[in-house]
Amino acid sequence: MSKTLDEFKQYLTEMNQYNHVTELIFWDMQTAVPKLGQDAHVEAVTYFSAKSFAMGTSEKLGELLETLAAPGEYEALDDTWKFIVTRMKRDYDRNKRIPAEVYEAYVRAQAESGNAWKEAKAASDFSAFAPHLKKMIDMTAELAGYTDPDMEVYDALLNQYEEGMDSATIDGLFDDLKKELIPLVKQIIAKPYTHPQEFFAYADPDAQRKVQWMLLDYIGFRRDAGAVGETEHPFTMNFSSKDVRVTNHYYENAPLSSMFSAIHEGGHGIFEQNVNPAYDNTVAGSCNYMGIHESQSRFYENILGRRRSFWEPIYDKLCELLPQFQKVSLDEFYREINQVENSMIRTEADELTYCFHVILRYEMEKAIFREHVPVEELPKLWNQKMQEYLQIIPANDAEGILQDTHWSDGSFGYFPSYLLGSIYDGMFLEAIEAELGSVDELLSEGRIGEITEWLNQKIHRYGSTRLPKDVIAKVCGKEVSAEPLIRYFKEKYTKIYELA
Amino acid sequence: MSKTLDEFKQYLTEMNQYNHVTELIFWDMQTAVPKLGQDAHVEAVTYFSAKSFAMGTSEKLGELLETLAAPGEYEALDDTWKFIVTRMKRDYDRNKRIPAEVYEAYVRAQAESGNAWKEAKAASDFSAFAPHLKKMIDMTAELAGYTDPDMEVYDALLNQYEEGMDSATIDGLFDDLKKELIPLVKQIIAKPYTHPQEFFAYADPDAQRKVQWMLLDYIGFRRDAGAVGETEHPFTMNFSSKDVRVTNHYYENAPLSSMFSAIHEGGHGIFEQNVNPAYDNTVAGSCNYMGIHESQSRFYENILGRRRSFWEPIYDKLCELLPQFQKVSLDEFYREINQVENSMIRTEADELTYCFHVILRYEMEKAIFREHVPVEELPKLWNQKMQEYLQIIPANDAEGILQDTHWSDGSFGYFPSYLLGSIYDGMFLEAIEAELGSVDELLSEGRIGEITEWLNQKIHRYGSTRLPKDVIAKVCGKEVSAEPLIRYFKEKYTKIYELA
Repeated sequence: MSKTLDEFKQYLTEMNQYNHVTELIFWDMQTAVPKLGQDAHVEAVTYFSAKSFAMGTSEKLGELLETLAAPGEYEALDDTWKFIVTRMKRDYDRNKRIPAEVYEAYVRAQAESGNAWKEAKAASDFSAFAPHLKKMIDMTAELAGYTDPDMEVYDALLNQYEEGMDSATIDGLFDDLKKELIPLVKQIIAKPYTHPQEFFAYADPDAQRKVQWMLLDYIGFRRDAGAVGETEHPFTMNFSSKDVRVTNHYYENAPLSSMFSAIHEGGHGIFEQNVNPAYDNTVAGSCNYMGIHESQSRFYENILGRRRSFWEPIYDKLCELLPQFQKVSLDEFYREINQVENSMIRTEADELTYCFHVILRYEMEKAIFREHVPVEELPKLWNQKMQEYLQIIPANDAEGILQDTHWSDGSFGYFPSYLLGSIYDGMFLEAIEAELGSVDELLSEGRIGEITEWLNQKIHRYGSTRLPKDVIAKVCGKEVSAEPLIRYFKEKYTKIYELA
Repeated sequence: MSKTLDEFKQYLTEMNQYNHVTELIFWDMQTAVPKLGQDAHVEAVTYFSAKSFAMGTSEKLGELLETLAAPGEYEALDDTWKFIVTRMKRDYDRNKRIPAEVYEAYVRAQAESGNAWKEAKAASDFSAFAPHLKKMIDMTAELAGYTDPDMEVYDALLNQYEEGMDSATIDGLFDDLKKELIPLVKQIIAKPYTHPQEFFAYADPDAQRKVQWMLLDYIGFRRDAGAVGETEHPFTMNFSSKDVRVTNHYYENAPLSSMFSAIHEGGHGIFEQNVNPAYDNTVAGSCNYMGIHESQSRFYENILGRRRSFWEPIYDKLCELLPQFQKVSLDEFYREINQVENSMIRTEADELTYCFHVILRYEMEKAIFREHVPVEELPKLWNQKMQEYLQIIPANDAEGILQDTHWSDGSFGYFPSYLLGSIYDGMFLEAIEAELGSVDELLSEGRIGEITEWLNQKIHRYGSTRLPKDVIAKVCGKEVSAEPLIRYFKEKYTKIYELA
């Protein structure tokens, strides 16, 4: 091994220690720390993030990357280290272009904006958040000017969350969806439906915890490399492929919420547990493409989890753990978990109307960065689009434009990932059925493991080493298209709702 | 503020960051990390412990302490910083006398010995552990020669866990106990008793968790500065007074175990939560005297928790959470939690025979360090003493000399702390009743908060700033004596067992 590569690896090992504890403090802040212990954790995470940042932007690292990327050294690297060096050098050069004072101002503004958003949402007062939002928009655009000087700003943002994706492609995909889904949803909404009371009956949180583990085991989330914590908003994080953690909440009168969160986060978790362990603790591991990542969580949650056949092998077990379901037939259960309704909140929306929640946000972001719509006019625009796509208007900003945290921390360009994930899912489903046969057959025979194994081999193990479009090309043999998702939706919902 | 003091505080703040994450990794390793994630945590904890050790033994720290302890600077410090500087300078000088290679060899031997003990215990094979034990004995004595060159070795070890305590004092205390307790236990053991089946009936772990929180709330462990984790062996740890964590286990057929562990660890936790917050993250905070610390956990567990009046206000609640107790009267419950039996395992022993388990270990340690009894002869000596004090002989080494972890990591001199804690408790009980009146009356009236408040004010808030003997002198107005504990035992057990 080259002396420089050796030195580089040692450098990464040390840098990784700082990342490791930073992530651990984050985990503990979400899952364990008592109220009065928060401040000490914030101090610690600030201290160690600064250490990590200093190592990630040091002259030393720059020199190592320079040497390793130069002819002679580079060719001697294996493919994994070629990827790591190229990727890190690109990010290093990109970040180096940001003036230190600009970055510091951004981090400070981000923290202030986050707090302002929380308060504004609690008070349902957009005007209190507006100046912070404006600042985040301006600074995000400014940063993109440094990191991606040759790209149009919003495309640069999209590219940060789903590398290789641009708004021209997304426009086409989302237009196809709108054209087909708007009439479909209209037909569905016309059908009357009453939710069975059992879905809102008291469900012991401890029993929900047991159901959650039953589901995680069932879909293939591995306990020896996984843990579960409890938080208000479920999420997944990982230290490496060997230590992946998901969280969940347990609402006493909404057991479906923890069940589908478990399947969703479990999908993210299965992805991370199955990345090639040789990539651990490098930029090759832990998939960085949000569309691809969401495709996996949403595949388990929706494509598999909202299928009747998914529940067939485990419905008895569910009824045992949560006795209220003993009064609900599997058919009724299946009907409920696929109830389509126009609703206010993205995270609570069904699989179908969810698409409009994302399209709305995508169009808002384009209006912000391309048409420069003034911040003050955004709530009105939000409500207009809610009326257009979902035929409802938020009663206030808390259930309207303030509902999501993303914009408050500057994550503009993230939202489309959710729907890209579903679009990919339509394509993956098609590919799986072509190779393995009917998913319903596999599921009802208890062979879900074969689907997980397929996803592991085709997608998960590559971590970040394959760009989204390459994943799609290799797995599906064609370019990204919304057509398979649309077909899936039409077939499924025509049947459930007995549409013409 | 002096420039040096300012610099010193900054130095401590940074050093504390390393301690903070080291403790956090420890916590996570005990409570959350999945099996495959352990190795990365071990690497991280090794890395950050080394950083912390380097800062704790640096020339820089030595100079700062030297300057602050010198005339002129020292007088200008307030009492807290006087204590901190004096204590840290003493420890710094002490540790500096240990040759680096000796310390490194000790740390390595400790790790090897810990693993060897685990394996030897699992195989119940003392001979596999014997060479490691011998090494730990020799190296512990060698280290004490460096740290405390002017003290006799075993006294130096006792002093490390309970500063200011020596074996001459302990001999007197333990002899008094032996004289009185041996005949008392003989009388008790003669009385027949059958354990009600309900105490071994299935108790839902989730219900036990609820009981645990009910108990922690009841005794005054604060949720805003506290958390609970799950581990095989319960323990308490703290980051500061603002973040104190206890753990527990939940055996399906032994609900009393988690209940009394909750009260015991809760007692440790209440202590730490109520140390003066000005001492946080310094050697003044977090009580370092194990006898005083155990006195608080054991006060809650035994002096309060095994009293009928403790359960009066909460027994209905307990029966609601663990329905098997509905068939047990409070009198029967009280009888069961005070059942005296000669048994093999220290941690499972009742309040009374527990004394003999400690006395045995104390006498063993004296035999090791004063009489230099060869390691090979220790199991025989152990069994002889078991026969002498408890009239039973272990069937094997796993339930005999290998049962505790303490000696495997070199914690010789720790065991007496447990019994010193109980001896102090007898004295504290006397002082409380003299000042607040009958503890039974307070408890049955639901006024346990007044007892906790008394302990907070008299003991907890001082953290490490008062030596054990000063705590006793201030709180009890006399020197340490086993007499109050003996009286407490005699009165209590004469009544329960209707002795003559």
